Amino acid sequence: MVIIGSGNVANHLMMACYNNPFIKLVQVFSRSKNQLPDWIPHATIIDDLAQLKEANLYILAVSDNAIAEVSSKLPFTNRLVVHTSGTMPMTLLDAKNHRGVLYPLQTFSKTKNIDFKKVPLCIEAENEAALKLLQELASNWVDNYYLISSEQRKVLHVAAVFVNNFVNHLYKIGKDICENNNISFEILKPLIMETADKINYLSPIDAQTGPAKREDTITLNEHLKIITNDNQKEIYKLLTQSIINHG
Amino acid sequence: MVIIGSGNVANHLMMACYNNPFIKLVQVFSRSKNQLPDWIPHATIIDDLAQLKEANLYILAVSDNAIAEVSSKLPFTNRLVVHTSGTMPMTLLDAKNHRGVLYPLQTFSKTKNIDFKKVPLCIEAENEAALKLLQELASNWVDNYYLISSEQRKVLHVAAVFVNNFVNHLYKIGKDICENNNISFEILKPLIMETADKINYLSPIDAQTGPAKREDTITLNEHLKIITNDNQKEIYKLLTQSIINHG
Repeated sequence: MVIIGSGNVANHLMMACYNNPFIKLVQVFSRSKNQLPDWIPHATIIDDLAQLKEANLYILAVSDNAIAEVSSKLPFTNRLVVHTSGTMPMTLLDAKNHRGVLYPLQTFSKTKNIDFKKVPLCIEAENEAALKLLQELASNWVDNYYLISSEQRKVLHVAAVFVNNFVNHLYKIGKDICENNNISFEILKPLIMETADKINYLSPIDAQTGPAKREDTITLNEHLKIITNDNQKEIYKLLTQSIINHG
Repeated sequence: MVIIGSGNVANHLMMACYNNPFIKLVQVFSRSKNQLPDWIPHATIIDDLAQLKEANLYILAVSDNAIAEVSSKLPFTNRLVVHTSGTMPMTLLDAKNHRGVLYPLQTFSKTKNIDFKKVPLCIEAENEAALKLLQELASNWVDNYYLISSEQRKVLHVAAVFVNNFVNHLYKIGKDICENNNISFEILKPLIMETADKINYLSPIDAQTGPAKREDTITLNEHLKIITNDNQKEIYKLLTQSIINHG
């Protein structure tokens, strides 16, 4: 395969190729060599699309707004080209090549390694042969892959915003509340880990506890008196009401 | 020590005494013997407060609204009695004994074991001797304990509602969104685990990503079109605005 891009996702994909006997990383396209993992042979790094060699698969791990342009600039036709976006439709890719999507549903940071085997891959392809190749790749790369249409992928991205971005924002509020009262945020970390781990054993609706679930209005009113920040108060009210109404 | 109660917290405290050479479980008070761990000797289980023996510490692991009554019914004075509540003040305990609090900040379920060593213990006591005993106990029981006043504990409980109850509710919404679109919730679980694990490496504000953080209004509006449920839409809007305003 060839990986085009040098951002977070591109880097994690490259790392995930290391020592995988099924995958041969033919080339990496990047405008700056020093953003790439050390072990990538310099001879395989290119910065000009004209130098692209033949490969079974070209992965465009570029930003959403670069997908259309980069895919149209590829100097070949009828090869398999996929993007890695959670939101963009497969058809954003130039139709001169066989199109597909390989979306790793995970949050990647520069500074934190990840076990790529555990990353769920969402795959989609516009024809049978392409889908077969992506399935073969995915099954040799990760524990679980899923066939997800462009429409489903969009919805999945919304769900990911709730369980990742919004959850992380609640962690931030928890930290703010602690620090405004001279309490170490460390004290909440085991609870945060256990809350997440519980979903591996219980459905979230069965795992729910607390004053909203119990409709314990005494505690709920007490909490609203303790919260001095208006924004936190609004969030407390809305999420409490949502738990009361929907479990 | 003596443990009074047979609910979730009481049971996890009992389990955490097992094989700990520092702790001697003198008695357990419970109205029903079959709710207790198997290994507890039947001779140490009592169901009448009058049978209570002498001990260094009496832990009242009972529901919030039973604390005052049970503590006043204890047939002795000037001994150390603590409750385990996240919300109730230490002074709810009857003043005839030395009062304190031992609040394990974790979510306990009946069906899931927990490594008690990792549970943060919040301790408080009304005098030096009592505090010293609780500190000695806590340091032999868990990795990290914290001195937390009744006022701080109330605030901490609010923070815990944000990072536990509310976070779990967002997991529930993520699951609902998936299932309404024939997508397996399994696909979100690695993301949920990684989002939690990240706080061990990054401050939540630095870990934040996504369309709200980028103020990517195109994606935000797209998402609002995809979300058909009014309650989810309101939560999406409020949390997005909170991320935009507060990071």
